[in-house]
Amino acid sequence: MTPSPNVSSQKAPLRTRVEEYFRGLQERICSQLEVVDGKAAFKADEWAHATGGGGLTRVLEKGGIFEKAGVNYSSTTSQLTKKLAAKLNLTPQKVHATGVSLVLHPQSPMIPTVHMNVRYLEPESGETWFGGGMDLTPYYLFDDDARHFHKTLKGACDKHDKNFYPRFKFLCDGYFFIRHRNESRGIGGIFFDYLKGDLEKTFAFVKDAGNCFLDAYLPLVDRRKKEPWGKAEKEWQLIRRGRYAEFNLVYDRGTIFGLETEGRAESILMSLPPEVQWRYNLTPKPNSREAALLTILTHPKDWI
Amino acid sequence: MTPSPNVSSQKAPLRTRVEEYFRGLQERICSQLEVVDGKAAFKADEWAHATGGGGLTRVLEKGGIFEKAGVNYSSTTSQLTKKLAAKLNLTPQKVHATGVSLVLHPQSPMIPTVHMNVRYLEPESGETWFGGGMDLTPYYLFDDDARHFHKTLKGACDKHDKNFYPRFKFLCDGYFFIRHRNESRGIGGIFFDYLKGDLEKTFAFVKDAGNCFLDAYLPLVDRRKKEPWGKAEKEWQLIRRGRYAEFNLVYDRGTIFGLETEGRAESILMSLPPEVQWRYNLTPKPNSREAALLTILTHPKDWI
Repeated sequence: MTPSPNVSSQKAPLRTRVEEYFRGLQERICSQLEVVDGKAAFKADEWAHATGGGGLTRVLEKGGIFEKAGVNYSSTTSQLTKKLAAKLNLTPQKVHATGVSLVLHPQSPMIPTVHMNVRYLEPESGETWFGGGMDLTPYYLFDDDARHFHKTLKGACDKHDKNFYPRFKFLCDGYFFIRHRNESRGIGGIFFDYLKGDLEKTFAFVKDAGNCFLDAYLPLVDRRKKEPWGKAEKEWQLIRRGRYAEFNLVYDRGTIFGLETEGRAESILMSLPPEVQWRYNLTPKPNSREAALLTILTHPKDWI
Repeated sequence: MTPSPNVSSQKAPLRTRVEEYFRGLQERICSQLEVVDGKAAFKADEWAHATGGGGLTRVLEKGGIFEKAGVNYSSTTSQLTKKLAAKLNLTPQKVHATGVSLVLHPQSPMIPTVHMNVRYLEPESGETWFGGGMDLTPYYLFDDDARHFHKTLKGACDKHDKNFYPRFKFLCDGYFFIRHRNESRGIGGIFFDYLKGDLEKTFAFVKDAGNCFLDAYLPLVDRRKKEPWGKAEKEWQLIRRGRYAEFNLVYDRGTIFGLETEGRAESILMSLPPEVQWRYNLTPKPNSREAALLTILTHPKDWI
């Protein structure tokens, strides 16, 4: 059998194989999401980074299911500022970063917003590492959905290390936390960073994590797309989306890394919701479904 | 003549007189804005700060003119973290901060959004200083409005020092700049910080700055409230408001100071627009009024 010329053999350098996997993952996810959406298609923008490399940003807007879906691939080389290097525990140097990052904002407040990211960082001097994760942000809580999402992630983790899921779930709850609101962004998932050591093994895990994303999320879309909602539910979604914007702009490492390394703003900020509201001091009625969500957001839960 | 018991005499400590002036300024501005709005009234929330002091937040929502108007007074004592102290060029210590801060988001895209702030900072050890400023964020540009706003500010500055207006206008253009977008937040105004030296003289200037706010802004409301607009203009306003949220959450010193010193999130973030849109990579049509605004935002101009 002749190996396909488009697939790098096991012997290609790790970075090459990682980039190839990431590009393929973006492609597969976008194709599937278009099928699920049924109305809009992804537009693609190829761009070059100011200091090296570039990326491919794919955005679907005003779809049947998705109000905005952004799936970004990038592979860039940038010079770390002193400040940013300190945050990453590195000396100021060039770093190569490649990854896939996506955020899906559905029209329906009954379908949760989801985020997924896998990334590979290679500093000029020092150890290479992987990072990534995915987390779910429901506007209305369906326990079954939360359980399915977490179980799928646990399945992908358990294949590699039984300690991964509990550790990465804990890190996720800690990371996607809006400090100034004292509440979680959503109901979590997994988050990992600075995974070093045996990089081939880590890469195998990262692939399984990336690959399980559609299995973790698409069944939720299917279950909830017919769930009824009205103006009040939409408004609640818009207000909660405000929290999402707050988290991404104030705390998210990927966003800050991107903006501080002069990344392409439109690609970095495509994660922001299409429409948002900020109402002063809004508190949901006691015993409402909105209040039930807030209880979970202030008391992270074990879903398995 | 018996001096009124409600007015502190010249001999009261500076901080007392500053707080009294700030509270009075908040009160006067809110009364006037209610008259101008003609429909909604300000709600008031008194709150206590976690580590000392508190404030009075006044918010008007869904008014005739203002979609959201927030005018905040606060007087708090907080312990500076090492990180925040470094930003302020201080050693970690307690600092007393008092100020008035407002942001008005009109319904009509023809009326600009405006921000004003005056503040007084007293570190436990070290020099006290004043800061403040105000800036205009139009969605559609009317040269007359920009000139009136800047001329009024220049008038207030010139009474104290002919160098103030050009210096503070320059600082304002530098401060209200959205680095990752490479564009200004609006058409500027004045911005000043770390005004030390003769504090009585500085206080006199700060009072004139605060007092000129309504004269600088209200005529614009009056001129533009009958200007027609439709869905397309509203959408442009919502998209530009997204930039406003980006600036406030990523760069604004007051917001960051507030969030990092565990201030009351609802009071700090009342500056955020009531409704916002983020559309991917939207570029206005060439030669449109929207494009004309962007030209000004990327090329700050001398308005006098």
